[in-house]
Amino acid sequence: MDKNELNEEEMQLWYMWKNTFKKIMDRVVKEMSEKTGLSEEGDFGVLVRLVDLGNGELRQQELVESMEWTKSRLSHHLTRMEQRGLVLRKPLDTGNGVQVIITSSGKSAVDASRPIYAKAVHKHFLDQLTDQDIELITKLAERVDKMS
Amino acid sequence: MDKNELNEEEMQLWYMWKNTFKKIMDRVVKEMSEKTGLSEEGDFGVLVRLVDLGNGELRQQELVESMEWTKSRLSHHLTRMEQRGLVLRKPLDTGNGVQVIITSSGKSAVDASRPIYAKAVHKHFLDQLTDQDIELITKLAERVDKMS
Repeated sequence: MDKNELNEEEMQLWYMWKNTFKKIMDRVVKEMSEKTGLSEEGDFGVLVRLVDLGNGELRQQELVESMEWTKSRLSHHLTRMEQRGLVLRKPLDTGNGVQVIITSSGKSAVDASRPIYAKAVHKHFLDQLTDQDIELITKLAERVDKMS
Repeated sequence: MDKNELNEEEMQLWYMWKNTFKKIMDRVVKEMSEKTGLSEEGDFGVLVRLVDLGNGELRQQELVESMEWTKSRLSHHLTRMEQRGLVLRKPLDTGNGVQVIITSSGKSAVDASRPIYAKAVHKHFLDQLTDQDIELITKLAERVDKMS
């Protein structure tokens, strides 16, 4: 097997895999944004973390680590969420870092969105999987983790 | 099973799957950009399509369809690629649409990048798959396609 080339079959598998991921994500994201007005990764991801990991608030640095976004991408995103009234930001008393706090309208948005998100993930992802798929996804994740 | 909720196991599977995809893509993209200076999806994707589908040139609309990008995203990206000397754009004689043409330096870049891309896809994706995984990816792609 020549590793400097991708034959037709290999290329097809790579594109198939990328397209399957993209299609499933697009469907979940579309359903979320149409029904809740929140983006899946950014808005919902931030709000859920604030509630579930921080009981309503987290340091910005903790969000960066949990979301695996760059500092600057998260910072820009939080500015927009602040403008929309979903979160507040306050400098920490220690003078070192920023606290991100969910507002009551952020809390309502995430509460209303959870069942919609769950339904979308069931419909577009979980319901598509066989038991064997679940086992293979788990094993592949382990192999890929070991590589890092 | 309550479809308005994601239990711990379901949530874990969803994140595991998203993270596996993200890790593999990040590794391929990083290797591409470090070793070739081209982005995987945008730069390399455009140049490969121009050569493989169009023998060096395609209508911008054909690129839009093949890449499944929005018109405006592709247009901005092509502007940057044009500035870097990788492609040229010319209005079509019919006055309707734009032709995108690979330059000789775009051609050199894609030729030099192909084996690097192939190696990265082998290392980070194909080499991680068992025969069972390949079957799963193929079947899942079929099921997901049918849903659309």
